[in-house]
Amino acid sequence: MEKVSLWIRGAKVWNAYEKKFEEADVAVEKGRFCYIDRERRTFLDAERILDATGLYLLPGLIDIHMHIESTMMTPENLAWALAGNGVTTIVSEPHEMANVKGMRGILEMIQAGKHVPVDIFYGIPSCVPSTSDELETAGGKIGFAEMKALLEYPEVACVGEVMNYRGVLEEPELDICRFLSYVRKERPGLPIEGHCPELVGRELAAYLGLGIDSDHTEHSLEEVRQRIENGMFLEIQEKMLRQEILDYLISHKLYEHCAFVTDDTMADTLMEQGQLNHVAAKAVEMGFPLEEAVYCATYTPARRMRFFDRGTVAPGKIADFQLVERPETFRPISVFKNGEEIWRPGRKPMIHGYAFPEDFYTSVRVPEVSPEFFRVPAPKGASFVWVRVMEVARGGTHTHEKVVKMPVQNGFVDWQGSGCLLAAVLERHGIDGSRAFGFLTGDCHKKGTIATTYLHDHHNLLVAGDSPEDMAWAVGRIRRQQGGYLAVRKKAVLAELALPVCGILSERPAEETGAALKHVRSVMRELGYEHENPIMSFACLGLPVSPELKLTNRGLIETRARKKVSLIIKEGERL
Amino acid sequence: MEKVSLWIRGAKVWNAYEKKFEEADVAVEKGRFCYIDRERRTFLDAERILDATGLYLLPGLIDIHMHIESTMMTPENLAWALAGNGVTTIVSEPHEMANVKGMRGILEMIQAGKHVPVDIFYGIPSCVPSTSDELETAGGKIGFAEMKALLEYPEVACVGEVMNYRGVLEEPELDICRFLSYVRKERPGLPIEGHCPELVGRELAAYLGLGIDSDHTEHSLEEVRQRIENGMFLEIQEKMLRQEILDYLISHKLYEHCAFVTDDTMADTLMEQGQLNHVAAKAVEMGFPLEEAVYCATYTPARRMRFFDRGTVAPGKIADFQLVERPETFRPISVFKNGEEIWRPGRKPMIHGYAFPEDFYTSVRVPEVSPEFFRVPAPKGASFVWVRVMEVARGGTHTHEKVVKMPVQNGFVDWQGSGCLLAAVLERHGIDGSRAFGFLTGDCHKKGTIATTYLHDHHNLLVAGDSPEDMAWAVGRIRRQQGGYLAVRKKAVLAELALPVCGILSERPAEETGAALKHVRSVMRELGYEHENPIMSFACLGLPVSPELKLTNRGLIETRARKKVSLIIKEGERL
Repeated sequence: MEKVSLWIRGAKVWNAYEKKFEEADVAVEKGRFCYIDRERRTFLDAERILDATGLYLLPGLIDIHMHIESTMMTPENLAWALAGNGVTTIVSEPHEMANVKGMRGILEMIQAGKHVPVDIFYGIPSCVPSTSDELETAGGKIGFAEMKALLEYPEVACVGEVMNYRGVLEEPELDICRFLSYVRKERPGLPIEGHCPELVGRELAAYLGLGIDSDHTEHSLEEVRQRIENGMFLEIQEKMLRQEILDYLISHKLYEHCAFVTDDTMADTLMEQGQLNHVAAKAVEMGFPLEEAVYCATYTPARRMRFFDRGTVAPGKIADFQLVERPETFRPISVFKNGEEIWRPGRKPMIHGYAFPEDFYTSVRVPEVSPEFFRVPAPKGASFVWVRVMEVARGGTHTHEKVVKMPVQNGFVDWQGSGCLLAAVLERHGIDGSRAFGFLTGDCHKKGTIATTYLHDHHNLLVAGDSPEDMAWAVGRIRRQQGGYLAVRKKAVLAELALPVCGILSERPAEETGAALKHVRSVMRELGYEHENPIMSFACLGLPVSPELKLTNRGLIETRARKKVSLIIKEGERL
Repeated sequence: MEKVSLWIRGAKVWNAYEKKFEEADVAVEKGRFCYIDRERRTFLDAERILDATGLYLLPGLIDIHMHIESTMMTPENLAWALAGNGVTTIVSEPHEMANVKGMRGILEMIQAGKHVPVDIFYGIPSCVPSTSDELETAGGKIGFAEMKALLEYPEVACVGEVMNYRGVLEEPELDICRFLSYVRKERPGLPIEGHCPELVGRELAAYLGLGIDSDHTEHSLEEVRQRIENGMFLEIQEKMLRQEILDYLISHKLYEHCAFVTDDTMADTLMEQGQLNHVAAKAVEMGFPLEEAVYCATYTPARRMRFFDRGTVAPGKIADFQLVERPETFRPISVFKNGEEIWRPGRKPMIHGYAFPEDFYTSVRVPEVSPEFFRVPAPKGASFVWVRVMEVARGGTHTHEKVVKMPVQNGFVDWQGSGCLLAAVLERHGIDGSRAFGFLTGDCHKKGTIATTYLHDHHNLLVAGDSPEDMAWAVGRIRRQQGGYLAVRKKAVLAELALPVCGILSERPAEETGAALKHVRSVMRELGYEHENPIMSFACLGLPVSPELKLTNRGLIETRARKKVSLIIKEGERL
C-alpha cells in the first residue's frame, strides 16, 4: 500500500464531469490529487487524515480576468485575501504598473507574485499607454518588443485585454496588431483577451478574426447573444449579473462558454463581500444552478486559460481545493493549495513582504506648489469666459461635457461661485512636469479636496477641490507620502490611503488597506460625491479612452474624437 | 464594402454554441470564415456566391485518433478519400511506419501528408517497438531522443497512445516515462493519448496521474463511468457504439467530454461505409442527438487537440466545412477546406504522388526460400510431439493457446493431418534474418496460404498455410512485390494487395486499394477464415502485446507473461 500525504474522508466531493457532489474519499500526494475513491472501500496509509464528513469539497476558484492593482494591494497581501475567499489561481493583467514603470513594472509584479499562497499568472498588457504621448504622459510604454519578450515568461497565460478595439480594426500598423499576428503564428494556443463593449455585427466578426475571443465588458442581451454565437468566451463580472443575461445563459445551457471573473475589485469591497466567490454566490442567488456556478468558477476558467492541470478534483490535477459547509455561499472554512492548508478562519497570514526596487517608492515627482499655482488665466481683457466642464454622472465612469459661463477676476477665471470644482492633473513621472486644468461638476464631491496618484491609466496626480489652499496642501501631502488617495479639508487629512509603491499600491495588509479605502469612500460621500463608486469614478476622470470629456496632464480630451480641446472656449469656436 | 472571396447564402448553418442549425449567410476570406450573418440583411461584394438554400452547412469533421497505416493508403490517397467523407482534419499516429523505418518513417509520413487536401497532424509514437528486442525485431526504434525531437514539428499535435499501460505504472525508468515527465514540464498543454483497456480504480488514477487523459479502447459501462468521472476524455470508436454506453453519455449529458474517432479503418470499409462520418451517423441512428453528434465530431475533438482555429463555423476560424442535404447521414454533397471546394461527387482527385525514399520501396529483405525451409525439426528420436498452437477466436484479435499432439516423420513434425496450419514469421528488415515457426487453428483459414508484411507492430513477414510449396511460393511473390497482403493456392495468386511502401502501404488510389483489400478479405473467407475481420485477425497474429499466444521472428510469445516459449513442449515441462 502506497503512502499518501493527505487523505480527506467522507466529504461530498465535486465531480466536474457529471456536475454533482458525491461522497468520496480523496487522496493527495506530492501536491496533487492521486485518487478519488467513490466506493470508499480502500484503506490508505496517509500522513494526515482529515474527516470532512458533512462538508463539501470543491476546487479552488479561478479568476482569469482581474487586475491586482485595482485592489491597491501588493500581490502577496492580495494572495492571502484571495485564499480566505477560496480563490487559488488568478490571471492578472498589470497594465497599471506598466503605465508607471513599463516593462520593469510588469517584471516586478511577476516577481512579487511568486512564493505567495495562491498561483498568480499574468496577461501581457497590450495597450500601454492607453492612447498616445499627445494625449497623456505615462511613465512606461509596452511596445512590440516588450510584448514579445513577455511571451517567454512561464507566468504569462494570455495576451491581456485588447482595449483599443477600434484601433485594431482600423490601424493594422499598430504594435498590438503586429503582436497579435506574431502570437497567432508562434503561439497559436495562447488566449487573447478582449474588451469590446460596443462591437456587434461585422465589426465584432472582424475583432474575432484577429483571434481575440473573449469579452468581459458590460453588454446588452443582444450583444451577449452575438458574442456567444460567434464563438466568443464570455467573462461575467458582477455588473453583468442581470436577470435577462442569466436567463439567456441558463435557458440555452451555455455554461461551457462562460466563466465568472472580477475584473476590478477594490480592497474594501473585497474585504466586505469577497471576490470571485461573491460573484458566483450572487449568480446562484439569481437562479444560476449551483452546479453550473461551481463549473463556471473552476472548470471553464481553467480551460479558457489552458490550465489543464487544475479546476477539477481528479487524479493528476493540482490539489487546490476548499471545504465549505454550504456550497451556495462559496464561503470556505478551510482552503488548500497544492495539498497544503493555506487558510482557515482566524489563522494569521505569514506575510514576508516583497521589497520593490527603490525607485518604485520614489515615483511621485511633482514640485511643491503654492495656492497661486492653481490660478487659471483668462484671455486678455475678457470679463467672462465659457469653459468646458466635466460633468460626473452616476452609473459608470463616463462624464458629459457641459459648458459653463464663468466670470473673470484680475485676469483669472473666477470659478469659486460657479458650482464647479477646480481640477488639475500634474505629470508625476519626472518626464516633463506638464500640468493641465479642468473643472468638475455633477455627481462629484461638492466641497473639500480629493487627490490621488491612482489615475487610470497613466497615474499622474489628480487633485480637485473647492480651495486652492487645500489643493496645494494635498499635493504636498501626496508628494511626501509618494502616492495615495486622499480627502482633505482646511489643510487637514479627512481620510487617506497611502500608496507608496509606484503611487498605486499600498503595502499594508488587506484588512488595513480595505479599512482605509472604505474610510476614503465614506468621506468622499460625506463631501457630496453621490456616485455609486466614488473611488472608481474619481480615478477614471483622467482616462482618455472612456467617454466623454477627461483631463490628463496634456489637457482636456474629447475622448470619442481622441483629440485635445481647450478649457476655455475660444471666440467663434464651433461647439 | 470589403470584398470577400466566398459568400454562401441561405444554408442552415451550424451554431456550435447554441447547438442548432439556423439560416444564415456565411462569408469567407483568406481561407477563414469572416462573417456569419444571421440577420441576412447585409449585402457583400463576393468573388463567388453560392446559393445553398435548403442545404445544411456544418464544419469539416475532425478525427483525432486514427492511424493512416491502418487504411494501407498513403497520406495523399487517404486525404482524398477523407475529403469525400467530409473529414478535413485528422491526427494520425504513425507507429507502424516507425516500426519499419524508425524516425525516418515518421518524418516521411509528415512530409507525405503535406500539400494534400486535408490537414494531417501526428501523434508522437510512444511505444516503438511494442515490446523489446528479445521478443520481436522491428526495423526502427523510437526512444527518448526521437520523441523529444518530434516535439519540434508543427505537425505534431499530441503524444500518441501510451499503449504500454502496465509498463508505465511499474517501470518509471522506461523512455516513455521519462518523456512524459519531460512533456509535462516543457509542453504542459500537449495532449497525451491513452490506451488502457482494463485499468480501473487506483491503477486508472495512477495512469491519469502521469498526465495521460484520454482513452479510445473498448470498455464496459463501469469502465467508461470511471474514465469520465476521473477526468479522462473518451474517444468513441465504432465498436464502442453500444446502447448502454450511449445511454449513459446521453442521460448524463457528457458530450463535452467525448469525441468520435475511427482508430483503425481498413481501405475497403472506408470506401464502402465511410470514416468518422460513418461513426457519427451510426451514433445518431442509435439515439445520440444529431446536434450532439455534430458537436462530438467537430467541436470537442478540436478542443481536445487544442485546435483553437477550427471545429466550428465562426469568425476567424478556418473555413473547413461541408454542405449536406440530410445532416443525420453525414454524407456531404460538397466539401470545402480553407474556403476552397476540395470534393463534390464525381470530381476526380488531383493526385500528385509522393515519392518516398528509395529504401522505402526495398524494405522486404527476405531470401528466396524452398519448401524445405518450412520443415519443423522434432527432438531426436521422438515419434510424436506436443506443440503449442495459436487458436484463432472470433470477436477480437486475441488467440488462445492450445496444445496439440502431432506425429513425427523422418525427424520432422508431421503437421499436415493435424487440423492445424503451419505459420512462419521471417525477419525482413535486414537485421538478422531470424525466423520462427508456429501452428494455427480455430477460426483462421482452413486451406490455402495467406502471407503478409502487414504484421502488427514489427511488420515482419508472416506466412501461414496448408502447403510448404505454396508458402515458399508466397514468400517469393511478396519478396518480388516488396510487400503485400496475399492469398495463394496451388502457386497461384487468389487475391492480392501490393504494399510496396515499407511493405505496409499501397500507392494505388483509394478505390483500387479498397477493392483489392475487399477481394483479399472475401478470398480469406472462402478459404475458411471465419473471423469478422480476417484481415485484422491475421495481421495481429504477430503482435506480442495482445493476448495470448503470438508468433514473432523471435518465436512463440506468451504475451501476458511477456516471455518466449518453445513451440514443441519439452519433456517434463510444466504447462
